[in-house]
Amino acid sequence: MRDLDETTITDEVLQAISRTPDARVRDVSEAIVRHLHAFVREIEPTQAEWEFGIDFLTRVGQMCSNVRQEFILLSDTLGVSMLVDAINHRKPKGATETTVFGPFFVEQRPELPLGANMSTGVDGVPMFVSGTVCDVSGRPLAGATIDSWHSDDEGFYDVQRREDLKMRARFRADDRGRFWFWSVRPKFYPIPDDGPVGEMLAAQGRHPYRPEHVHFMIAAEGQETLVTHVFIEGDPYLDSDVVFGVKNSLITNYRECQPGLAPDGTEMAVPYLLLEYDFVLSPELRP
Amino acid sequence: MRDLDETTITDEVLQAISRTPDARVRDVSEAIVRHLHAFVREIEPTQAEWEFGIDFLTRVGQMCSNVRQEFILLSDTLGVSMLVDAINHRKPKGATETTVFGPFFVEQRPELPLGANMSTGVDGVPMFVSGTVCDVSGRPLAGATIDSWHSDDEGFYDVQRREDLKMRARFRADDRGRFWFWSVRPKFYPIPDDGPVGEMLAAQGRHPYRPEHVHFMIAAEGQETLVTHVFIEGDPYLDSDVVFGVKNSLITNYRECQPGLAPDGTEMAVPYLLLEYDFVLSPELRP
Repeated sequence: MRDLDETTITDEVLQAISRTPDARVRDVSEAIVRHLHAFVREIEPTQAEWEFGIDFLTRVGQMCSNVRQEFILLSDTLGVSMLVDAINHRKPKGATETTVFGPFFVEQRPELPLGANMSTGVDGVPMFVSGTVCDVSGRPLAGATIDSWHSDDEGFYDVQRREDLKMRARFRADDRGRFWFWSVRPKFYPIPDDGPVGEMLAAQGRHPYRPEHVHFMIAAEGQETLVTHVFIEGDPYLDSDVVFGVKNSLITNYRECQPGLAPDGTEMAVPYLLLEYDFVLSPELRP
Repeated sequence: MRDLDETTITDEVLQAISRTPDARVRDVSEAIVRHLHAFVREIEPTQAEWEFGIDFLTRVGQMCSNVRQEFILLSDTLGVSMLVDAINHRKPKGATETTVFGPFFVEQRPELPLGANMSTGVDGVPMFVSGTVCDVSGRPLAGATIDSWHSDDEGFYDVQRREDLKMRARFRADDRGRFWFWSVRPKFYPIPDDGPVGEMLAAQGRHPYRPEHVHFMIAAEGQETLVTHVFIEGDPYLDSDVVFGVKNSLITNYRECQPGLAPDGTEMAVPYLLLEYDFVLSPELRP
């Protein structure tokens, strides 16, 4: 293993990792080396470009915190997250389609009762969200957990500008698989673009916007956990989502409601929006 | 750009970056997307494996500090650094061969006069280092700058265990291209393996060792800057260097010297080692 050159080094690195005990780790390691070396051979980076790449990746890592995940943004904006999503969700017909998880989920989100307002004290147009959770045969999934999170009416998530967690909560569906809660209307927004991923988008002449959406993560016994969004018809960024996540089946529209009695019996003094979406989970794949 | 699936997403991402204004940025961006997507298609990562990958890269970035560069270690241990080095140094016959830069160079290294000891107060076997710097026609390169850095006799660089900078300095060759300085003998060592790269090596069943070596970076007007090491014959890791950096032409041997008058006139009371190596720089490539 001396005097390696352009023509011999890849085989030598593959040889060095060929004794990897775990077969999956070995396969992934070998694929990383082959594809990474093929990339380097194709673009022939200068030493300065290699240094730029090292520095870029370092800055991506150092931008990450408990409220910011720049490597997920990088994966999202290069289409990798949606590709991984597609590979992992070759779903049965009828199940709700999936989309990216995104970097703004927070493990310590509040658990709230059905009907609660997860955005108390947050400015914005009131939004009543409701729907059902079923399996592919149409059977309601009683007790399914519904996580929802979204931006405020200026396009910012709580973790980007607030000390407290708002516009996010976990609910539990009732006996008939139904869920409902209050929040405020979100807005389209730029992904955080003050870091290296923002630099990349600028260099590529791309805008950093995602169309207005509400995130959902829905889990039920025996079903594959569903990670998806609901998008809103007419948004200017539906056809150029910076993370490539829009699916037609996930687009719906608000019903604009006048002041008066809301579906859950709340007396509304101001106009509000109804967002209804029914989710269909696919059966869990046994490993 | 809706309803992207496994078969359509790569073209759509390439389309999105096709308006990148700078041609080189566009080519590199396109190559990243094609090779990254091909890698994902080949290994079909589960969602959990993708999350592991995101977390791994994040930890690599967060391990970096002003005295630790984990992404360089990752590049080194995957053979990428040596591949980039090979691509960038298709050298004229006769020039000294190159090898990896490594993660331990420090910009704020001391400048010392010829003959100085760059390791005063450091335990170890005294080592007198000397040689010449020439161009490919054999002409001495007067005033060339010689940066040298290496580990201590337990295999640690200064930045890994000391507050002050030792075992590293910049010198300037004399009128005849000669340089000489004192230090202490280094030792083979494991690359820092308490981080994610160490985890990767362990998972791949690889040892983390590099054979004993002294780093050199040599620069002179009109010449390409040379980044290389000098290795020592007989080291147990010459054939399994974890970063794939050994070249036969860079291996030499110490001359073991008894107490007495050293080549620079120093009266040595203890045995010491002579390390001699002559460097040949190749002409600068005009861009």
